Amino acid sequence: MAKLSGFPEFLPADRAVEQHVLDHLRRVFELHGFANIETRAVETRETLLRKGEIDKEVYVVQRLHAAEGESTDLALHYDLTVPFARYVLENSNELDFPFRRWQIQKVWRGERPQQGRFREFTQADIDIVGRGSLPFHADVEVAQVMAEALAGLPIPSLTLQVSNRKVLEGFALGLGIAKPTAVMPIVDKLDKLPRDRVVAELHHLGLAEAQAESVLDLASISGGGADVAERVRALGVSHPLLDEGLDELAAVVDGVQAGGAAGAAGLGGVTVVADLRIARGLDYYTGTVFETRMAGYEHLGSICSGGRYDQLAADRRTTYPGVGISLGVSRLLVPLVADGLTASRSVPSVVLVSLADDESRAEATDVARRLRARGISTELAPKPDKFGKQIQHAEKRGIPFVWFPADGSVKDIRSGEQIPADPDHWDPPPADLRPQILSITKEQLS
Amino acid sequence: MAKLSGFPEFLPADRAVEQHVLDHLRRVFELHGFANIETRAVETRETLLRKGEIDKEVYVVQRLHAAEGESTDLALHYDLTVPFARYVLENSNELDFPFRRWQIQKVWRGERPQQGRFREFTQADIDIVGRGSLPFHADVEVAQVMAEALAGLPIPSLTLQVSNRKVLEGFALGLGIAKPTAVMPIVDKLDKLPRDRVVAELHHLGLAEAQAESVLDLASISGGGADVAERVRALGVSHPLLDEGLDELAAVVDGVQAGGAAGAAGLGGVTVVADLRIARGLDYYTGTVFETRMAGYEHLGSICSGGRYDQLAADRRTTYPGVGISLGVSRLLVPLVADGLTASRSVPSVVLVSLADDESRAEATDVARRLRARGISTELAPKPDKFGKQIQHAEKRGIPFVWFPADGSVKDIRSGEQIPADPDHWDPPPADLRPQILSITKEQLS
Repeated sequence: MAKLSGFPEFLPADRAVEQHVLDHLRRVFELHGFANIETRAVETRETLLRKGEIDKEVYVVQRLHAAEGESTDLALHYDLTVPFARYVLENSNELDFPFRRWQIQKVWRGERPQQGRFREFTQADIDIVGRGSLPFHADVEVAQVMAEALAGLPIPSLTLQVSNRKVLEGFALGLGIAKPTAVMPIVDKLDKLPRDRVVAELHHLGLAEAQAESVLDLASISGGGADVAERVRALGVSHPLLDEGLDELAAVVDGVQAGGAAGAAGLGGVTVVADLRIARGLDYYTGTVFETRMAGYEHLGSICSGGRYDQLAADRRTTYPGVGISLGVSRLLVPLVADGLTASRSVPSVVLVSLADDESRAEATDVARRLRARGISTELAPKPDKFGKQIQHAEKRGIPFVWFPADGSVKDIRSGEQIPADPDHWDPPPADLRPQILSITKEQLS
Repeated sequence: MAKLSGFPEFLPADRAVEQHVLDHLRRVFELHGFANIETRAVETRETLLRKGEIDKEVYVVQRLHAAEGESTDLALHYDLTVPFARYVLENSNELDFPFRRWQIQKVWRGERPQQGRFREFTQADIDIVGRGSLPFHADVEVAQVMAEALAGLPIPSLTLQVSNRKVLEGFALGLGIAKPTAVMPIVDKLDKLPRDRVVAELHHLGLAEAQAESVLDLASISGGGADVAERVRALGVSHPLLDEGLDELAAVVDGVQAGGAAGAAGLGGVTVVADLRIARGLDYYTGTVFETRMAGYEHLGSICSGGRYDQLAADRRTTYPGVGISLGVSRLLVPLVADGLTASRSVPSVVLVSLADDESRAEATDVARRLRARGISTELAPKPDKFGKQIQHAEKRGIPFVWFPADGSVKDIRSGEQIPADPDHWDPPPADLRPQILSITKEQLS
């Protein structure tokens, strides 16, 4: 049976890693008071295509035996931002604003599968949306929360790159460029195209040579918030929007760094920088923009992106400005799992209770029940095989302990140590309570 | 903006109920050592239609701009059993058998929406699958684990109805009926059709009047395991398969009752009965079958169903017999939420830290960080409004406590009590740590 390309599925021990990651993300998001929602997998095509970006990549959905004339108006969502905007408008009377939500769901894109690109994948988003207005500090907050969440993951080190569209737009306006917003999608191609091709595209847009060079000088600047502001100002261009953008940029970068420094765990493994090359292709961003690179996996592109969108959601009376950031969980994990990231066992079970014969099943069940009552995941041997085979059953799955009800003992099958134990009092080492994540070492990455 | 019929979405406080339910199910499944997997949302149409059951209800999936001649072979899964069988075959070399897994995902059916029927809904399944063979005790185990999981949910009382196809088939064979398996889908209609219509269909199948009456007498029997076996034998029909089925049926019913009686929490709210009316329409069941009714919500039909399937998964060399049970989480929760089941707050936050002015944001952030470090979900006021407005912000969301960093105090805004507090030592009452589930009372159900 051939697997379907672009639709990754994990084996149980690898799924345990994904569960660990999703649990951690949820814990951090909820500690910060973000509420969870799920939206339906389908949107009307009208909702999805309104953004006019990726119509080629949409999967439409239709009943196999649709009745004559039946509408085929539905398509699978390709991100969680557009459905969230629709949910906010649909429930605006029931929600309290600013509304802070986290959302982890699968999304679908009909892209040609290639490394790091999937047709079905999981995203983890946080967004803050206001009604009418949203304080700027929300930009700092989503970055702080996501950086804290990323810092606790069993993955290689990350660089969170922050920029601000007002810097790019204000700079272009200061240079006298007529269509500053048209410049951004071109600058955004610096990752994929050689510099002279980007210059050519900027010329094609009507920029003079000096203007194009200035724009690329700007895009080459990266570093700490205050340092970046100084280097931009040294380019000699000035505009009020540029100043506003530089202030916001420094506030986000410094805010995340300060939050990390103050936190007990710090931002271990996550570096935050201002990087003016980051522009984001999507045209709904209006201020702060984010991207994230993973060390050793730069070819995956950005694994966590987002930004401020002041007009994404609006009905006739009200606009709902928002800011959000979205982690590509599958884009991150599928390559890491392929490279060896996994868990110490394929089942949650800490203990396998052995079964001497069918008559002692009640006794074995009772031991299991007492262990479970104290939160210790326990399974019974499926049948009264020889003990050697039952131990093998545990070994194959990575279950660390086998219990012998008849003589009231438990054996650590890794060390071979067997001790008398009472199911109402025995505790495994805390590290054995859940499958351990076997992280990839730096050596494996080189 | 009109909502899409058949695609339920929850508001945040109601989603908190769903999260509570899903967390509880996962906890019980994992305490029993079931491993988690997720399968992709799409299957090939060939895989889905192999069972030949519900082809009308399948949603096919296609790229909006599919290239000429591009295959449109994909459809959304309509349950988690068929994808699980496919996953087992595809990964049979990597999995350890018996393989015990839990799986909670959305599924889709293009049905006409009506109460309790949705086009997108969440299912929670446990299954045990063997390679070549599977001990009968697995039937008892899945029923025990699901009964224990159901018993801990904040829902009305449930009746888990158990039957066994071998009883029905053996009884029919004992009566000399030529096509015993054709009898079952007709008996299964007893819920929906009047008795005389069912008799007419049985006549149409070729049953004599006495045979049809005997079959309906059998279907009218329900009760405890031993009691039911005695009443069936009193009908005077005998066949080896009937005896085998009655033994299995009694073992499942008595096993679940015994497990419940021994458990600390018992099976509060869940009653287990043998009920020979239960036949299940799907033809892949070969032994034990389950259905479940919820008190006051009988019109929803069965909210938790399953059974033994000895031939669902097979490749050329090997069959993988299994047994499973599937809870319709949306079918259960959407009507209960519509009737008032909800949570005490719409956000995870236990504490709102107030903000006196922009200058004191660092101090407020520090209080929040220290509370979060001890697992207390905390959010900051979005801006330095008047304190009255900040308290209102908490009240609207159901956040029980407001913190005042300047004077180091915390206020329970329900009682109005305000006390001095240190963010490194203050603890909320344990019941306030998470949103509380506000269950529907019996009065509301009447």
